[in-house]
Amino acid sequence: MRTQPVILAIDAFHEHVNATYPGPNAEKIDLVVTLGGDGTILHASSLFSAGAVPPVLSFSMGTLGFLLPFHIDDFAKALECVFEGKATILNRMRLACTFYNKDLAKKGNDGDDWQVMNEIALHRGSSPHLNTIDIFVDGQHLTEAVSDGLIVSTPTGSTAYSLSAGGPIVHPSLSALVLTPICPRSLSFRPLVFPASSVITLRIGDRSRSPAGVSMDGRTSHILNPGEYVNVQASPYPVPCINRSSIIEPGDEGEHHEGAGPGKDDDWVRDINNLLQYNATFRSKALLRHSRT
Amino acid sequence: MRTQPVILAIDAFHEHVNATYPGPNAEKIDLVVTLGGDGTILHASSLFSAGAVPPVLSFSMGTLGFLLPFHIDDFAKALECVFEGKATILNRMRLACTFYNKDLAKKGNDGDDWQVMNEIALHRGSSPHLNTIDIFVDGQHLTEAVSDGLIVSTPTGSTAYSLSAGGPIVHPSLSALVLTPICPRSLSFRPLVFPASSVITLRIGDRSRSPAGVSMDGRTSHILNPGEYVNVQASPYPVPCINRSSIIEPGDEGEHHEGAGPGKDDDWVRDINNLLQYNATFRSKALLRHSRT
Amino acid sequence: MRTQPVILAIDAFHEHVNATYPGPNAEKIDLVVTLGGDGTILHASSLFSAGAVPPVLSFSMGTLGFLLPFHIDDFAKALECVFEGKATILNRMRLACTFYNKDLAKKGNDGDDWQVMNEIALHRGSSPHLNTIDIFVDGQHLTEAVSDGLIVSTPTGSTAYSLSAGGPIVHPSLSALVLTPICPRSLSFRPLVFPASSVITLRIGDRSRSPAGVSMDGRTSHILNPGEYVNVQASPYPVPCINRSSIIEPGDEGEHHEGAGPGKDDDWVRDINNLLQYNATFRSKALLRHSRT
Amino acid sequence: MRTQPVILAIDAFHEHVNATYPGPNAEKIDLVVTLGGDGTILHASSLFSAGAVPPVLSFSMGTLGFLLPFHIDDFAKALECVFEGKATILNRMRLACTFYNKDLAKKGNDGDDWQVMNEIALHRGSSPHLNTIDIFVDGQHLTEAVSDGLIVSTPTGSTAYSLSAGGPIVHPSLSALVLTPICPRSLSFRPLVFPASSVITLRIGDRSRSPAGVSMDGRTSHILNPGEYVNVQASPYPVPCINRSSIIEPGDEGEHHEGAGPGKDDDWVRDINNLLQYNATFRSKALLRHSRT
Repeated sequence: MRTQPVILAIDAFHEHVNATYPGPNAEKIDLVVTLGGDGTILHASSLFSAGAVPPVLSFSMGTLGFLLPFHIDDFAKALECVFEGKATILNRMRLACTFYNKDLAKKGNDGDDWQVMNEIALHRGSSPHLNTIDIFVDGQHLTEAVSDGLIVSTPTGSTAYSLSAGGPIVHPSLSALVLTPICPRSLSFRPLVFPASSVITLRIGDRSRSPAGVSMDGRTSHILNPGEYVNVQASPYPVPCINRSSIIEPGDEGEHHEGAGPGKDDDWVRDINNLLQYNATFRSKALLRHSRT
Repeated sequence: MRTQPVILAIDAFHEHVNATYPGPNAEKIDLVVTLGGDGTILHASSLFSAGAVPPVLSFSMGTLGFLLPFHIDDFAKALECVFEGKATILNRMRLACTFYNKDLAKKGNDGDDWQVMNEIALHRGSSPHLNTIDIFVDGQHLTEAVSDGLIVSTPTGSTAYSLSAGGPIVHPSLSALVLTPICPRSLSFRPLVFPASSVITLRIGDRSRSPAGVSMDGRTSHILNPGEYVNVQASPYPVPCINRSSIIEPGDEGEHHEGAGPGKDDDWVRDINNLLQYNATFRSKALLRHSRT
Repeated sequence: MRTQPVILAIDAFHEHVNATYPGPNAEKIDLVVTLGGDGTILHASSLFSAGAVPPVLSFSMGTLGFLLPFHIDDFAKALECVFEGKATILNRMRLACTFYNKDLAKKGNDGDDWQVMNEIALHRGSSPHLNTIDIFVDGQHLTEAVSDGLIVSTPTGSTAYSLSAGGPIVHPSLSALVLTPICPRSLSFRPLVFPASSVITLRIGDRSRSPAGVSMDGRTSHILNPGEYVNVQASPYPVPCINRSSIIEPGDEGEHHEGAGPGKDDDWVRDINNLLQYNATFRSKALLRHSRT
Repeated sequence: MRTQPVILAIDAFHEHVNATYPGPNAEKIDLVVTLGGDGTILHASSLFSAGAVPPVLSFSMGTLGFLLPFHIDDFAKALECVFEGKATILNRMRLACTFYNKDLAKKGNDGDDWQVMNEIALHRGSSPHLNTIDIFVDGQHLTEAVSDGLIVSTPTGSTAYSLSAGGPIVHPSLSALVLTPICPRSLSFRPLVFPASSVITLRIGDRSRSPAGVSMDGRTSHILNPGEYVNVQASPYPVPCINRSSIIEPGDEGEHHEGAGPGKDDDWVRDINNLLQYNATFRSKALLRHSRT
């Protein structure tokens, strides 16, 4: 890096700024620093829709998270490590979403793709009618989904909305697309995982009685009417996120297994139990206080 | 291929042959032809534990399946296409499983790896005590699982036992490992998907009150006692399976979407609804016969 | 019944009539006949909000269903059986829903209860913010739910929206309330089944960032703001539905088990496989047509 | 109660006593006191197979639980309350299980019923072949299950094995039977809840390739061969369990809702979050310690 790095700092306040805010000139920026919650990082991602994203260093003001590896108290130390070139990167895959109207023409002012870091979700919202959505994979019909909606998620997003809807948890270093139905009107519609080379097309059925609302990374944007569709595929522009393991030495919590070769430090593997209450066993830690006389 | 190809034919009868049957010399075999069910293909895979597998052409005597793309009636046509070099291949990932005793030494006569095409499953069997299994990913502790058992599955195996246990459906061209718990004693233990570069270690807890039975591709083999473990990782030797799409022209069922570019023919995408009753909608096709007077 | 029975006939057209349509005088009506789909029966139920419901005889114009035991072709036969007193009844439980504002006063013009036959659902609709809802059972705090929404369902409704959201299937002759979360932001929020004597209170959390939309039997009605709540409990007025078994002789499909005593004919047990594609086994009936040369 | 009550005390040691141990004469016993874990109470239940069960007062030596409302430190206080007649009872339903051979004759030495408090489970154990089990409800065929096994559970047992297999959580004061499949070979086999008046028959299919092991309340007992079956129904002899709420005053944790009428104290509603880690929200209490320099 140059001696005078250009840093773009984004805080929680700016995450609510209008989404049409013009994106920064990515080439001139060496580092993005975010201060806030997951929403701040998702907002940072949205600012770089047109191309490559600079490395992102994310600080939490409170609880840590998958996207929030650093606490603000470690600000100086983390920044120093980054500038000394010690940081390692996890390239978090994004999805490029392109919307089309019934005439197969791109929708919107400019026809640009939308880049999402967590997921794109189609949902009936408060309509009384279920969505009927045809799903195509690489142009081939997979199935017709009658449901509240559908989610296409990145591995990063697999611990967000997709998880609530019953999807699997996917390690963020895998390149894959997760398709998760929301309240499907079928007993047998299970989540699907596709390779990152797949193009998933979600097309509102012609006989669908209501349009579907589209939300991307939690922000409502488009309405898709019957016959309209969106193509979802891996974006060429992932988000390079700086890992905690490369900067903060792991404590004694990082138990390693002798017989399994030299252990890599993987923030995600270490954090999953804490962050998701993952696999919290019945009763195990639930010491119910009993009253004493 | 040579003008005089060497073909190994395996039928359902031989699938029950003793598993210690010495593997064929893979280098001299040009093609494996299987006649029977999924078990026949899994058996063919098990014969090539030590190295590369020749292309596999699989015929069903009855119902088709993910691993059974051809019906025996198409035998001549399929074989002809293969020898004319028209066939395309899906390399189905396998898992290499290595067993260790408490002293971190390899278990078994020869210490060879076991290759599985669907899954390795650890299960308490008919023991009244749940298994306690420590899970490590790349040597790093992930969680302690208290459950009936655990499954590590390939994408191919994701539509077999893992699916019954609640796992996601993973496209067979993705390289990934699926970890699915069997009846976990936790409300929050969800299936996990890891990149194919991961090494998953399953170690029976020292305080576990019973050993775990190991079954690989549905065949019971080892017993793992407390302190013993198995390392599971992607095998360097996948199974090259010959696709149906390359040989039998798809009928009108292969509906393609105009707006999504030239559609690839993907057996798996076409077959999933038929083979799994996937996404069978409540009532949709369930025309209940009503009685007439 | 009297020689001149009073029959209220409701068809699919009238199901879309304004919901404020004044309810009929139930005491003067001997029989309700519905012609249409599930929505027609739900509409019939809604007409009798204030008290007892006369017996309901439901005809389908097409596919039969749990709520649609008779085909229109059997109209004459069914009516004759009813008037001869041969019909048996399944009393389908309803839920009485009462809405309250922050001041604990009843909400709405008249403060009347709403009667639902399937379910009451609270949902965030197209709001980007998850609902935060406190759940009380008989006035005692159960948990705080952060989710897309919550469903309280009757056993009848357990095969409708609750099933899509992951709820269990409950036999309609059991008196119970089913509480099913919709996409909860928790790995460990499972559906709950309560006795019919329970009062379930759903209260929008004071800090909730958005109101919840309420839909009852699929119709949107109220908005609940933070601090407002709804009490849900078994209604004293079930819907007496006329069974098929009592009228149409079951065919050979009603397989009975010799060793289990005299079998009762139960429409629901007989129909569940057909109506839900329940327990459709992988591959079992999926005879994939293979192409022949 | 008489001035000289007869108390049967059972501790964890005796829970491992041979199951053929003759049951105590229930009529002469005023109170059963158990000291230990859930297994001790299940054992106490098994001692009273032939008839009514005296009230059961259960003490834990460590962590409390649904079946373990009292800590041993409260021994004197609890006993005093019981003898003063202040205790309230929750009658926990049991299941009566009767086994039959292929000739429809009762199986076993004496043909007695077995009483279970949590569940009866049929399982393939370590057999490589799935069980094929025909399910009848009141003698009427429901479905054919191909699976690792099936569970019929009481509401009390709904938080035990059935929960691990994906079953719903049922309040223990509801009278119901829960049927939960274990790893079914179907995408669409959901848990079912039946009224307590139902008789559920589980019959091993004639073509089943392996017998099913039967375990009742976690203890392995019978083997059922193809053609043999078990009838499961509500037992006339529930287990009267003494509630905590009646004895130990609830603390401030028992938050009540003003608008919902006088709150009843319900141990189960209060304890579910603690005992099951029920509805533990992503991240909510997961304050990940961050390292400080």
